[in-house]
Amino acid sequence: MSKSASLKNYFLSHRKVTNELIDKIEPEHFDYKPAPTSMSAKELVIHMLTTFHMFAASAAKQAPEPIHEKSEEDDLSKLADKYTDEAVKLIESLSEDSLNDMIDLTDIIGSSLPAEKVLEIAVVHEIHHKGNLFVYVREMGHTDLPLFIKT
Amino acid sequence: MSKSASLKNYFLSHRKVTNELIDKIEPEHFDYKPAPTSMSAKELVIHMLTTFHMFAASAAKQAPEPIHEKSEEDDLSKLADKYTDEAVKLIESLSEDSLNDMIDLTDIIGSSLPAEKVLEIAVVHEIHHKGNLFVYVREMGHTDLPLFIKT
Repeated sequence: MSKSASLKNYFLSHRKVTNELIDKIEPEHFDYKPAPTSMSAKELVIHMLTTFHMFAASAAKQAPEPIHEKSEEDDLSKLADKYTDEAVKLIESLSEDSLNDMIDLTDIIGSSLPAEKVLEIAVVHEIHHKGNLFVYVREMGHTDLPLFIKT
Repeated sequence: MSKSASLKNYFLSHRKVTNELIDKIEPEHFDYKPAPTSMSAKELVIHMLTTFHMFAASAAKQAPEPIHEKSEEDDLSKLADKYTDEAVKLIESLSEDSLNDMIDLTDIIGSSLPAEKVLEIAVVHEIHHKGNLFVYVREMGHTDLPLFIKT
């Protein structure tokens, strides 16, 4: 398996779970916060989707800015599908050689890293916040939750 | 850097954060559950420590059973130090060759994997539950929380 195919599988093994959790969040819970200083459920989901995009687009040397309009934030499941499709395209666009290219992330994490490492950090960031999201969704009353990884 | 040194750093970049969160959990919050079906804070911490141990000990072909007595569960910070020290020893014991050895995890995840992959899964499991723990600790009233990764 090519390195980018392996990274795509690693990403999707977690993103598919993220998307299952997002599908459980009803609009009346979009503003739900577990604690006063927490991100709301909607803020957390948008943070996860746009941060992964920022890392993956940077790795592919494309514009890292969000690719959605404010109005699309009313349907988080659709937004998740949009960002997931785009993330897969970005990862698939990376050749074995370009995965070794150094990506300048000085503004974001203070250093430059090979594109491959940028994608690995992006997935780890997703796993961390998906761990947050599991608690949010359980607190919304859901008890039938997926495993944390989909193989 | 050797592969086991790199895996040790990857592990510690997350475990150090786990341990900072554990240090914030006062005994009166050990039984705290964010939702009725959640693990309690104490159960979650013990699950994280013993599961990492189970994976790392399996990777090093040692007994995967917990290494603490029930009475040690009254001091979660001390328990975390004990399991962290042991995890470092287990990871350091793995040579480049032995990281490629296939480890039979049929009983746990239904397949065999190279020792290196077993350690990677162990860290991902830790990141996931650390993401849970961040929400627990914020709900206990803490707002001065570490970054999710320590470099």
